[in-house]
Amino acid sequence: MWRNPIPAALLLVAITALSVQAQGSAIPNKREGRIIAAVHAVLDAQRDAWNRGDIAGYMDGYARSEDTVFVSGDNVTRGWQTVLERYKKNYDSREKMGTLTFSDLEITPIGKDTAIALGRWHLQRATDEPHGRFTLILRRTKQGSRIVHDHTSAAS
Amino acid sequence: MWRNPIPAALLLVAITALSVQAQGSAIPNKREGRIIAAVHAVLDAQRDAWNRGDIAGYMDGYARSEDTVFVSGDNVTRGWQTVLERYKKNYDSREKMGTLTFSDLEITPIGKDTAIALGRWHLQRATDEPHGRFTLILRRTKQGSRIVHDHTSAAS
Repeated sequence: MWRNPIPAALLLVAITALSVQAQGSAIPNKREGRIIAAVHAVLDAQRDAWNRGDIAGYMDGYARSEDTVFVSGDNVTRGWQTVLERYKKNYDSREKMGTLTFSDLEITPIGKDTAIALGRWHLQRATDEPHGRFTLILRRTKQGSRIVHDHTSAAS
Repeated sequence: MWRNPIPAALLLVAITALSVQAQGSAIPNKREGRIIAAVHAVLDAQRDAWNRGDIAGYMDGYARSEDTVFVSGDNVTRGWQTVLERYKKNYDSREKMGTLTFSDLEITPIGKDTAIALGRWHLQRATDEPHGRFTLILRRTKQGSRIVHDHTSAAS
């Protein structure tokens, strides 16, 4: 029967259907597990870069694209370079950068190359502790998983 | 040659590869066009419901799931019912609801059943005009395209 093209085609469709169904389940499959691990690695590297005062290293977590967006308050900052300049301006001293931690991470893979990450951010500084939440969209790029969309909000 | 299963299988792979490549292009394909139209329809219906004082109708735009999340400031509200209660509490009069408009919508389809929507929101009220940005993640449900994740921020 394997010389008949129909079963081969149906088999491919069945495999595709099974892999799509797996995406909706609570237990991550192998590919989802890899996506989740990649997102954790990006965020760990960002935290470590930030905490050694390395904004350029921190920016490595974002896709080097003109479409990369950072959203906060009523502002949209667009393009990797512009996002970098915003960080450099807002955090122009080691004191302002403080110590960054991420927590309560929830990573949801979508399709085969995208993930949503919801989490908390917290900056420990000498005189204050700004903190809040972020929603990130990460996509697979040639450099690996990178943030293409960051919506960050702060406790008021 | 169509009696040989290999070309049939390769053809399927080629069609899949082409359709995946199309997702990354700037011009939406047919499926992407349908996803974008569906997201516009959800947001138009939400705006119309809000502007007739119908919070339950507005909530129809959100997926009726315990996983639906609304994020703002440092708060995460989880579950359709809890999000409804938050809206009812924060907008307990027609005056507080004001007139809602959405603008600057950018809708990005991801995969075959998901979309990201970035946009502006604006409430015109008698004494103030709260406004800001939102990032929405919409997924296809049995009821159609619905918001599963809403990160909203306001001008400070």
